[in-house]
Amino acid sequence: MKIVIIGASGHGGLCVPKTMCEDLNFVAIAPGSKGENVDGMVRTLHMKGYTPAIYSDYREMLRKEKPDVAIVDNFYGEHAPVILDAFGAGCHVLAEKPVAATMEQLEQLREAWDKAGTAFSTMFTYRYNGAFYRAWNLIQEGAVGKVRLLNAQKSYKYGTRPDFMTRRETYGGTIPWVGIHGVDWILWMSGGRFESVTAVQSAAQAPNGISPETTALAQFRMNDEMMASLTIDYLNPAAAQGHGDDRIRVVGTKGVLEVRDNRVTLINGDGVQHPENLPDEDMFADFLRHAAGKGPCRISGEEVFTVTRAALLAQSAADSGEIICFDR
Amino acid sequence: MKIVIIGASGHGGLCVPKTMCEDLNFVAIAPGSKGENVDGMVRTLHMKGYTPAIYSDYREMLRKEKPDVAIVDNFYGEHAPVILDAFGAGCHVLAEKPVAATMEQLEQLREAWDKAGTAFSTMFTYRYNGAFYRAWNLIQEGAVGKVRLLNAQKSYKYGTRPDFMTRRETYGGTIPWVGIHGVDWILWMSGGRFESVTAVQSAAQAPNGISPETTALAQFRMNDEMMASLTIDYLNPAAAQGHGDDRIRVVGTKGVLEVRDNRVTLINGDGVQHPENLPDEDMFADFLRHAAGKGPCRISGEEVFTVTRAALLAQSAADSGEIICFDR
Repeated sequence: MKIVIIGASGHGGLCVPKTMCEDLNFVAIAPGSKGENVDGMVRTLHMKGYTPAIYSDYREMLRKEKPDVAIVDNFYGEHAPVILDAFGAGCHVLAEKPVAATMEQLEQLREAWDKAGTAFSTMFTYRYNGAFYRAWNLIQEGAVGKVRLLNAQKSYKYGTRPDFMTRRETYGGTIPWVGIHGVDWILWMSGGRFESVTAVQSAAQAPNGISPETTALAQFRMNDEMMASLTIDYLNPAAAQGHGDDRIRVVGTKGVLEVRDNRVTLINGDGVQHPENLPDEDMFADFLRHAAGKGPCRISGEEVFTVTRAALLAQSAADSGEIICFDR
Repeated sequence: MKIVIIGASGHGGLCVPKTMCEDLNFVAIAPGSKGENVDGMVRTLHMKGYTPAIYSDYREMLRKEKPDVAIVDNFYGEHAPVILDAFGAGCHVLAEKPVAATMEQLEQLREAWDKAGTAFSTMFTYRYNGAFYRAWNLIQEGAVGKVRLLNAQKSYKYGTRPDFMTRRETYGGTIPWVGIHGVDWILWMSGGRFESVTAVQSAAQAPNGISPETTALAQFRMNDEMMASLTIDYLNPAAAQGHGDDRIRVVGTKGVLEVRDNRVTLINGDGVQHPENLPDEDMFADFLRHAAGKGPCRISGEEVFTVTRAALLAQSAADSGEIICFDR
């Protein structure tokens, strides 16, 4: 399958294998946003032995290369128009999250995807992390009984951030960029659905005081009286062990499970346990298997829409200060 | 000072020293709620060498004994009327939380306290815990910079619970009974004030499905764009190390601090640190010093009202499903 890369601003690099893999045919690359620089990704591809054609216009690239697969990884607030073009060109699409920055965009994507009939997934990378995947498996096995309450935490170091994050239009917002992972964990691990959300956010610590939002909270009321909280910040200190201090705590009727420091702690009738992580898996390989018609991948297109919608509604709740209800 | 005890349903036992202390003059004890049994507390006092008079009517006790200090510890939803009577008898009052179960009661208490002019505090026991107190001290010293975000967690084992907790009238509710500690930590550690709250709660796992609420969440918008989340549950598994899995995480502009497993972790420009806990202190001794006019105690009467009001408004938010705004 012919693969093109559009943009190089997020985690698209995860699709490039550590060592040259002949099966992966990276035919071309182009920026996906105005002013986006893809030189770093080109260098990475060259170092691995790939020699993609380089385009300045991704639409021209789609027309000329007729790729099977498009990796979409431009500015975080501008994914949707690029994905629409890729669907229009008949591509399977693996896109950086959030796949859309507005509800209108998300509806357009839905329509275009239904029409394209191609494979579609997004970079909810934690589904391929061995600690989070182990946690999800334990919950499926009944290790915590019925899930009642979930607390998700995303905390990142601020470090050096690109200029496009200083504007909502090109960034998209911290809840859909960072918080969306927590939204995904909550839906994935609970197996439930959201009924309403309230949220708060602040960009007080952003260099320009406008964007990105550096702290945020969201609180979800769910079906069957489940509930979930999500905390997000860019204030993880430089001295912290990892870039992210990512956690999910799942409280059930028969036990409590927590992922923290990339390790699972489970407490239930069998005592306090630290189950081994499952192996980390390759997101892109899983997507390519799916695109080749060899079964589902870990994040279905349906889930892409459900989670993205929830993250966008959470951001709307923070923007408006209102309680937002989810229609079924 | 003559001390009486009214009720024995909460943490009043913390006021009885481990070994007989001649300075503490426990003159009498009585139940404070209809059907309340204080035999256990009487046995404890006897074992320590105290021989309080035993009354069946606390009002008669207040009239006859003319005590200086009343410890109020009856059913959690019925503290306010007893505190009102104790103020009326001119007592200094140390009350189990919440001091009131409704906003109307809280206003009555405020009026009665202003009139009584006596010492008043409540059992926010964590202020005397050496880990939490150390955390607060570190924040005062600037260890995390400006506080931006707080996440509080209260998780208890359900264990065996008294019958009065199965009715809101006598119990008061899980947010004001358990969650109030988290509300206190948030206000205490942030030094801020609440602007609005949203909350959810569920009694789905209560034996009668009505009370107590076994899970709850609250989300607070605060001054200066600070924000705080609170998660509460009674689902801490029997196998967990302690009764409670209590945590507070304070995210600031220069560092992050967390209390977990009765231990402080601080990460800031000086790296990852585990500052020693300060010594645990005696809440009742601190209150008696205050009552004797020897300076403030750790929880001022003003703070009692501020925190209780916030917990009651959080419960109103959960009961109504609405956003509740705090007037200044």
